[in-house]
Amino acid sequence: MSPLDLGFILFDYAAVAVFGATGALAAARRKHDIITFAFFAAITGVGGGTLRDLLIGAPVFWVARPGYLVVCLGAAIAVWLLGARTWRMGLLLWLDAVGMAAYCVVGAAKALSLGVHPISAVVMGVLTACFGGVLRDILAGEPSVLLRREIYVTAALAGAGVFVTLASLGVDRLVAGGAGFVVALAIRGGALRFHWSLPGFPGSPESEG
Amino acid sequence: MSPLDLGFILFDYAAVAVFGATGALAAARRKHDIITFAFFAAITGVGGGTLRDLLIGAPVFWVARPGYLVVCLGAAIAVWLLGARTWRMGLLLWLDAVGMAAYCVVGAAKALSLGVHPISAVVMGVLTACFGGVLRDILAGEPSVLLRREIYVTAALAGAGVFVTLASLGVDRLVAGGAGFVVALAIRGGALRFHWSLPGFPGSPESEG
Amino acid sequence: MSPLDLGFILFDYAAVAVFGATGALAAARRKHDIITFAFFAAITGVGGGTLRDLLIGAPVFWVARPGYLVVCLGAAIAVWLLGARTWRMGLLLWLDAVGMAAYCVVGAAKALSLGVHPISAVVMGVLTACFGGVLRDILAGEPSVLLRREIYVTAALAGAGVFVTLASLGVDRLVAGGAGFVVALAIRGGALRFHWSLPGFPGSPESEG
Repeated sequence: MSPLDLGFILFDYAAVAVFGATGALAAARRKHDIITFAFFAAITGVGGGTLRDLLIGAPVFWVARPGYLVVCLGAAIAVWLLGARTWRMGLLLWLDAVGMAAYCVVGAAKALSLGVHPISAVVMGVLTACFGGVLRDILAGEPSVLLRREIYVTAALAGAGVFVTLASLGVDRLVAGGAGFVVALAIRGGALRFHWSLPGFPGSPESEG
Repeated sequence: MSPLDLGFILFDYAAVAVFGATGALAAARRKHDIITFAFFAAITGVGGGTLRDLLIGAPVFWVARPGYLVVCLGAAIAVWLLGARTWRMGLLLWLDAVGMAAYCVVGAAKALSLGVHPISAVVMGVLTACFGGVLRDILAGEPSVLLRREIYVTAALAGAGVFVTLASLGVDRLVAGGAGFVVALAIRGGALRFHWSLPGFPGSPESEG
Repeated sequence: MSPLDLGFILFDYAAVAVFGATGALAAARRKHDIITFAFFAAITGVGGGTLRDLLIGAPVFWVARPGYLVVCLGAAIAVWLLGARTWRMGLLLWLDAVGMAAYCVVGAAKALSLGVHPISAVVMGVLTACFGGVLRDILAGEPSVLLRREIYVTAALAGAGVFVTLASLGVDRLVAGGAGFVVALAIRGGALRFHWSLPGFPGSPESEG
């Protein structure tokens, strides 16, 4: 295994862990039991990558390597044990941002490495980054990240776009991946910190019958 | 490429475009930004066909040909630019009806062409026609088309059933497809215009404990 | 076909039928029409197994054998004809428990028979058992089974875990499957009867800014 591969694998597990933790935190907010913690952690942690693998026709990554599920279980137990005093709503949003930034690169990288068209690879990055959180929100009965006004999908799109563009230009993939990660995290972080948002649709279709 | 194939491909792109537009309109109703417009357009436009391809084991149609995504992006931009004065709720419902009628035929046709059992091909037509809209409604947090009393799934079922039956009887596929499209659109259009609905379940399970 | 295979196939059809009936009952509670009955029955009946097959890369079981869909249609018609006086909310919960207990074994058994890692096979059992009901609840716009405080996922996890453990130890699969079924049904039944629940997360992350 080359150091580059190892870097992506560590990146991948780290993304699963932090995203899994956001799932467990969503369960914590409603005071669920430990099994639901684990279920939410697993769905949020591997949901996006699962959709990516199904769409590009790759074997689903965690089925043959259940270590990913064990990482999610560990994240759930960690959230449970560390408890409420340590974990706050703000942390949920920031962990989610880190997981999103990592996933938009990891998802696009896997698609590129399997020969997927660069445009579709960008989309795979966005789906990998956003779909776990979308599933978490749908299952938790909360408004999806897609409906919040703050920039979210845009950050994943920018990160995946930067990575795929640089990688297509021949830049070293770990460098390209780092750039994509930083861009996505900077945009999402700015949105969280300064409440950035894109302008909404200016029309008012409902008020004009 | 034969003219018949070309006809189906144009049908397919047109269905993606009109369904994508309904997704963008759902985003417009809540004044989302352009990225969310594009995301909703893409999910609604290709969601049903994606589910069909996953279920029948075919490569997902838009991954190798991202032109479908570009069509969705175009639909999103068109809705954004044409604005609120032109687009009204009624138009959303009628575009949705046209997309549904096209998709129930296109979805069943692809399944048939890959040797899927005719009964399953009808189901693929219904899923292709309805699932994009279901995803759109779930993601937008609105009541699913499945829960509305007006006829919807029934129209897709009739259209896919007519197409598969005629195609199985040896009728030219473009003719059979046209017939299925017209039947589905007529039933859904009648439901929209005259508020047709099937009789609901007569019992009252909840009031009798 | 060996008697063991036949046993699993009958188990499988029975699980589809009872789970399909719970889908139709969910439609009955909102007085939907017969088409929506059938749609809910089919989604609930085959949804979990469909996800399992997609994840493990197997051909989706009902596409080549639409008899499963016919069973769902039969379940929908049975619920419609037998009507409200016979069907009550409590029955919905108990049928759901039986379907869940059967599915957690059937789902894990199929995964094991295709060489999936035992840990992932347990997860496949849980997903097969729970995902149809989750889809039913999401589509019906009701709180997901995942959010109810009573034990549900835990029962499926215990049943699938018992089955996979016994099967891995070389116990006859029909015996191991029966044991898993009984364990899952006993735990879920106890939860329904005695309102068992696991302790919820003790912290209070939202009240502490």
